[in-house]
Amino acid sequence: MDRHNPIVTLTTDFGTREGYVGAMKGMMLGINPNLTLVDITHEVQVFDVMAAAFVMQQSLQYFHPGTVHLIVVDPGVGSERRAVALRHNDHYFVGPDNGLFALLLETETPDQMVELKVDKDQSLSSTFHGRDLFAPAAARLASGVPLEDLGSPASHLEPLHWALPIDDEEGIRGWVVYVDHFGNCITNISRTLFARRSVGREVTGYAGSGIIRNVHQTYSDVPVGEALMLFGSTDLLEVAVNQGSAATLLHIQRGTPINIVFGSSVA
Amino acid sequence: MDRHNPIVTLTTDFGTREGYVGAMKGMMLGINPNLTLVDITHEVQVFDVMAAAFVMQQSLQYFHPGTVHLIVVDPGVGSERRAVALRHNDHYFVGPDNGLFALLLETETPDQMVELKVDKDQSLSSTFHGRDLFAPAAARLASGVPLEDLGSPASHLEPLHWALPIDDEEGIRGWVVYVDHFGNCITNISRTLFARRSVGREVTGYAGSGIIRNVHQTYSDVPVGEALMLFGSTDLLEVAVNQGSAATLLHIQRGTPINIVFGSSVA
Amino acid sequence: MDRHNPIVTLTTDFGTREGYVGAMKGMMLGINPNLTLVDITHEVQVFDVMAAAFVMQQSLQYFHPGTVHLIVVDPGVGSERRAVALRHNDHYFVGPDNGLFALLLETETPDQMVELKVDKDQSLSSTFHGRDLFAPAAARLASGVPLEDLGSPASHLEPLHWALPIDDEEGIRGWVVYVDHFGNCITNISRTLFARRSVGREVTGYAGSGIIRNVHQTYSDVPVGEALMLFGSTDLLEVAVNQGSAATLLHIQRGTPINIVFGSSVA
Repeated sequence: MDRHNPIVTLTTDFGTREGYVGAMKGMMLGINPNLTLVDITHEVQVFDVMAAAFVMQQSLQYFHPGTVHLIVVDPGVGSERRAVALRHNDHYFVGPDNGLFALLLETETPDQMVELKVDKDQSLSSTFHGRDLFAPAAARLASGVPLEDLGSPASHLEPLHWALPIDDEEGIRGWVVYVDHFGNCITNISRTLFARRSVGREVTGYAGSGIIRNVHQTYSDVPVGEALMLFGSTDLLEVAVNQGSAATLLHIQRGTPINIVFGSSVA
Repeated sequence: MDRHNPIVTLTTDFGTREGYVGAMKGMMLGINPNLTLVDITHEVQVFDVMAAAFVMQQSLQYFHPGTVHLIVVDPGVGSERRAVALRHNDHYFVGPDNGLFALLLETETPDQMVELKVDKDQSLSSTFHGRDLFAPAAARLASGVPLEDLGSPASHLEPLHWALPIDDEEGIRGWVVYVDHFGNCITNISRTLFARRSVGREVTGYAGSGIIRNVHQTYSDVPVGEALMLFGSTDLLEVAVNQGSAATLLHIQRGTPINIVFGSSVA
Repeated sequence: MDRHNPIVTLTTDFGTREGYVGAMKGMMLGINPNLTLVDITHEVQVFDVMAAAFVMQQSLQYFHPGTVHLIVVDPGVGSERRAVALRHNDHYFVGPDNGLFALLLETETPDQMVELKVDKDQSLSSTFHGRDLFAPAAARLASGVPLEDLGSPASHLEPLHWALPIDDEEGIRGWVVYVDHFGNCITNISRTLFARRSVGREVTGYAGSGIIRNVHQTYSDVPVGEALMLFGSTDLLEVAVNQGSAATLLHIQRGTPINIVFGSSVA
């Protein structure tokens, strides 16, 4: 037999000091005590839908098909924003439809989608849909309830798009979309876009107060304390410092532009 | 069969940087590797028994009957404060008896209670009862050991009471008992108390630098950035700002008074 | 039957804001969805191999034999440092061999050890071996794959040693090796070393701005707010303040020296 405990991941901006996450977990384990609950993070910057999508993209592909992802960053709780559950590429998602899922999945039309019923007459609170609406839906989905039984069919996600780098004869101009715990500055320049332009040419990156030549494979390719560019673990161009913080050393923060200039052919 | 892994929740002020929580979990999984351990929080302000009780009240009711709650905020470890395990409303609790349980359960006489044996001759440390005394008791309780086998019968909890709002002809005067991660300011004024007084009358709240009219259903009932009063997810009156921090905007902190004044009838 | 879910503990310096830990967990649960994953901490100071070893020593012995410990604090990712898996005293360990394991186990020759194959041609990233190399190895080990199947035999760990206290006719001179969440200052002076010297004699400790007489059993042996010395939960001499922070009160930080002077016989 290859039955195993179904997995639900949790991503929120609730922080870890209060009982909010605990209440959601209690609710889910009450529906199915055999769930395996995996915290991705509860420290998304408050209401930062983009950061939540970014963080979830870092881990999503490492969970196996069928996993349910409960993602609640919900500045519009109680408003007219829809509550949804959906399936896309064999993963399931539950949460408020505020652009986060369109960013995360990079589509507006997931494989299957329902709008959750918000029954205002019931015990549903007006301020904590994470606990009263989304957590139960995620637990039921993980326990085998078919998606279509959770609500009424829907098709289009609230649209939201990643800002794309500008790519022209002067080079590539992108932005730092995330600064991580180590001070690594992750840009929106993908390995694919970069590869199309860089073949056999010298590369210089300008970001914050740094001018960085070439792209390396790993941090230790340069001396300790020195800045470098590399493709990080999610295949995005990253400005980093070997055993240091690029954000601090080069005065880079989220939103800082990065300009990539291609020189003459190397060979 | 509907056997499932027994659940133990953990609430402490140990923080998450050291190995203290890990040691407790190792101890419990050593006794029963099939336990499902759910962290409520380990970031209770150090020695803040009241905050721990408040946070636990937010999540307690969402766990199903039979759950064991290990709660260790223990300024008096090694002193004469008792170590207890108890059952109340079909939930189990283990920890030091320092007023926290009386606050949490709002009673001094739980349904059943024992005093845990503190065997000083044994391997019991004098400084970490969480690991050496409470965690093993919680694991045994969750594994089916009867409560009465864990210690000697006891009946009265160390008393501690929530400060109650003052309710007179001038209105209701309460306090902010908790400021959460979002800057929402939660008061000690319950929906029930409020409802008795407010029927059909205008309501004005004074808290910090804010004067707030009426009570709304949810954050998005007012424009973004504006203050409101509402009953939050635990049915206590809350001062909040739609997509902002009431604590910052209105200069409110824990302990700040809130005055509710009732005007003439609305209709 | 006494089969149970195998346990893997996780200790890293990855922080809890990003998807890095989530990616490792997804990877492990993809290999074996029945693993019980226990976070020790992900808040080790970035690249602080010594703190990681210290924190792990606090919890290691409380996990039962056979537990797999995944420990990734990896300043040298992508460099020539080896990737290892090992068994010692019936516990298993997986991570980069950068001195951490020698510190943690206080040996350079573990009972059994292999060097993990770093297959650079494969999907292995150059910057995130935690996810692509160590997590899968830990999951396989916990699932019953023999250690010897994970790599090629190896024998000696990268050496690293704890600084030992100086012990001479003037007394014992040690250092504060860790300041915990409560402000307790844990030194490198063990109960065993101390006991050899202190029998029946007066003891005075000098640390930071504090002069502290005698060694007590527990915090509450002195009045609230007063400093004391005691042996903490890991049998190391600790400078603490009853219900306060010794670090703040006595201006002690990690690395601060502590001098223990023995006086005339007490009796």
